[in-house]
Amino acid sequence: MTIDPWKVEEIKNYEKLLNEFGLEDFGKIVRKISNPHLLMQRGVVFGHVDFVKIASAIKSKKPFAMLTGLMPSGKFHLGHKMVADQIIYYQSLGAKVFLCVADVEAYNMRLASMDKLRKIAIEEYLTNYIALGLKKKNCDFYFQSSRSKDADKANAYYKLVGMAAKKTTMNQLKAIYGDMSPGKLMSVMHQVSDILHPELKEFGGKKPVVVPVGVDQAPHLRLTRDIAAAFNRSKEYDFILPSSTYHKFMKGLKGHKMSSSDPYSYVALTDTEKLAKEKILKHAFSGGRETLKEHRKKGGVPEVDVAYNMLYFMFESDDKKIKKVYDDYKSGKLLTGELKQILLEKLVKFLVTHKEKREKAKDKVHDFLE
Amino acid sequence: MTIDPWKVEEIKNYEKLLNEFGLEDFGKIVRKISNPHLLMQRGVVFGHVDFVKIASAIKSKKPFAMLTGLMPSGKFHLGHKMVADQIIYYQSLGAKVFLCVADVEAYNMRLASMDKLRKIAIEEYLTNYIALGLKKKNCDFYFQSSRSKDADKANAYYKLVGMAAKKTTMNQLKAIYGDMSPGKLMSVMHQVSDILHPELKEFGGKKPVVVPVGVDQAPHLRLTRDIAAAFNRSKEYDFILPSSTYHKFMKGLKGHKMSSSDPYSYVALTDTEKLAKEKILKHAFSGGRETLKEHRKKGGVPEVDVAYNMLYFMFESDDKKIKKVYDDYKSGKLLTGELKQILLEKLVKFLVTHKEKREKAKDKVHDFLE
Repeated sequence: MTIDPWKVEEIKNYEKLLNEFGLEDFGKIVRKISNPHLLMQRGVVFGHVDFVKIASAIKSKKPFAMLTGLMPSGKFHLGHKMVADQIIYYQSLGAKVFLCVADVEAYNMRLASMDKLRKIAIEEYLTNYIALGLKKKNCDFYFQSSRSKDADKANAYYKLVGMAAKKTTMNQLKAIYGDMSPGKLMSVMHQVSDILHPELKEFGGKKPVVVPVGVDQAPHLRLTRDIAAAFNRSKEYDFILPSSTYHKFMKGLKGHKMSSSDPYSYVALTDTEKLAKEKILKHAFSGGRETLKEHRKKGGVPEVDVAYNMLYFMFESDDKKIKKVYDDYKSGKLLTGELKQILLEKLVKFLVTHKEKREKAKDKVHDFLE
Repeated sequence: MTIDPWKVEEIKNYEKLLNEFGLEDFGKIVRKISNPHLLMQRGVVFGHVDFVKIASAIKSKKPFAMLTGLMPSGKFHLGHKMVADQIIYYQSLGAKVFLCVADVEAYNMRLASMDKLRKIAIEEYLTNYIALGLKKKNCDFYFQSSRSKDADKANAYYKLVGMAAKKTTMNQLKAIYGDMSPGKLMSVMHQVSDILHPELKEFGGKKPVVVPVGVDQAPHLRLTRDIAAAFNRSKEYDFILPSSTYHKFMKGLKGHKMSSSDPYSYVALTDTEKLAKEKILKHAFSGGRETLKEHRKKGGVPEVDVAYNMLYFMFESDDKKIKKVYDDYKSGKLLTGELKQILLEKLVKFLVTHKEKREKAKDKVHDFLE
């Protein structure tokens, strides 16, 4: 792990989160992985449940799986890339990757029509995943609304949706999700099957499964483990309880959450060079001081600076270099405009290369749709 | 229609039911069918919603479908036979017959394990249906937990389960079903898809569908029509709203409801001659008087007599003969023992023949399981 001063401050908040959600500290297990991902090294992935099973499967080269769900709404942006990077990382380690388009959930949340959701999932998400390095081998990309062109697989997945409902109560669900609508309940039961079904014999059988999520998903993961345990007790299924990791959210450009309804809150992977520059230079929240004089004197606040944040999360993988950026900004030596230029150089290079890769990826999309 | 004095008395109750549940009087539409089933002629099928579409499809020999669900619990008895008779009747008129094993529902009601439910559905229900005359042609026998060995069909059915939830609210569901558990909600959404999915293109496309049910199911049918109408408004699907018919329940042997937990409340189609005789002679509730003298003087009460009931529902199809039985019993000319003998002669003959047919049916079961 890098020793980043930022962590020292933030760690208090995350310790609180670990306790609140009953998570283990990822920092304590990261050394058991020979080649941890940058997001793990940097403590962006900060918590876990039962990751020891995954670390051990990776080490002993035993089968394991990774599942993540995507909500097909709006543009594919850097926040999504953070999850995509983890998907591709696990795939490179030999994981069977399950990519679930949560269209039944999105539909029930009234985000769009089923047809529109399908289009977004393919044109925005899948295409970008492929451009970022997702391989067809060991990848099962699917829609909740149409699980598989193999009937045995489809039936097995939906049977689990139907049976999961028996293993919980309305009060449990309300405690986790608040007020329950029929659509919300239907979404939750699909999610439970999403997480557990990679272990069904139709999908290759029992194996450890890891689900990388944001910390807001912790209660859902706990529910799924409870349901899996109930199935094990009744001997109706035999699941290894799913593992999960928890990552910080990348800050939106304005310093708050990214929002798909506000294009100036994120950098999309389809943004042009010009637009990306405009977003960073004019809209990215800065940790700099009001005047040059004040900045030189007091120094900037990298912790809240969006450009620093992006470098730290994904664009500057060299620990020494990121530390220098941090120190220079903190001391006032590095100005806000200069920091943004450091990011932009990397970001623009990435966007330009990615655009080419995405064009090529379009030809491969069909292979991933069975 | 026969003019049965019993009807005159009971019709008041059923008129009340028709109003309460917003049903039409089946008696007014039965003449539009050239060859109505005995249960229709006798007013056992007494109510309907939108049956005019079905009558018209039958008349013009246009495609239509019939769907019924079976709850695989306990023995197949005469109450089930009443529904089976309707299934086979519609099939003989050219209907595409959908027979749904409501195993997801039964599982969520904690009736039995999925494996047990499957076994009962096949060995008790399907085998008896075949013995009663169900043909493979135009019959789609399926399980909610495993819709089809054709993946397109399976996905289309489950997609509808997932989407139906969006078209209703928890308050609507509670008003119909009382307190909602997750399992109950999951069951309801499967039932909605059961009723509507015969119209999907994967299942032969748009056509009138009739669902013959007991009157307790009326609110569920109304919900399903509302959901279908909502799908039509949003242009996501294009359904003909489902039709339904409503039948009286056959009385249990003791004069109350048949109960699968009490074998002496029903005659099962697997009962031996000896057991059937014992049940009718010793347990069947009688409308006779306490003493022979009183019976001769006051006459019996055929309306509450279980043996008369069975003759009327299914074992005496000759209108003149059933009227004579009614009149003779009512006048006191026919004694309870004699009435029971009239039934037993027919019932035993049926059971003996049915046993042979069931043995032969066992060889055909496999054909119905895709």
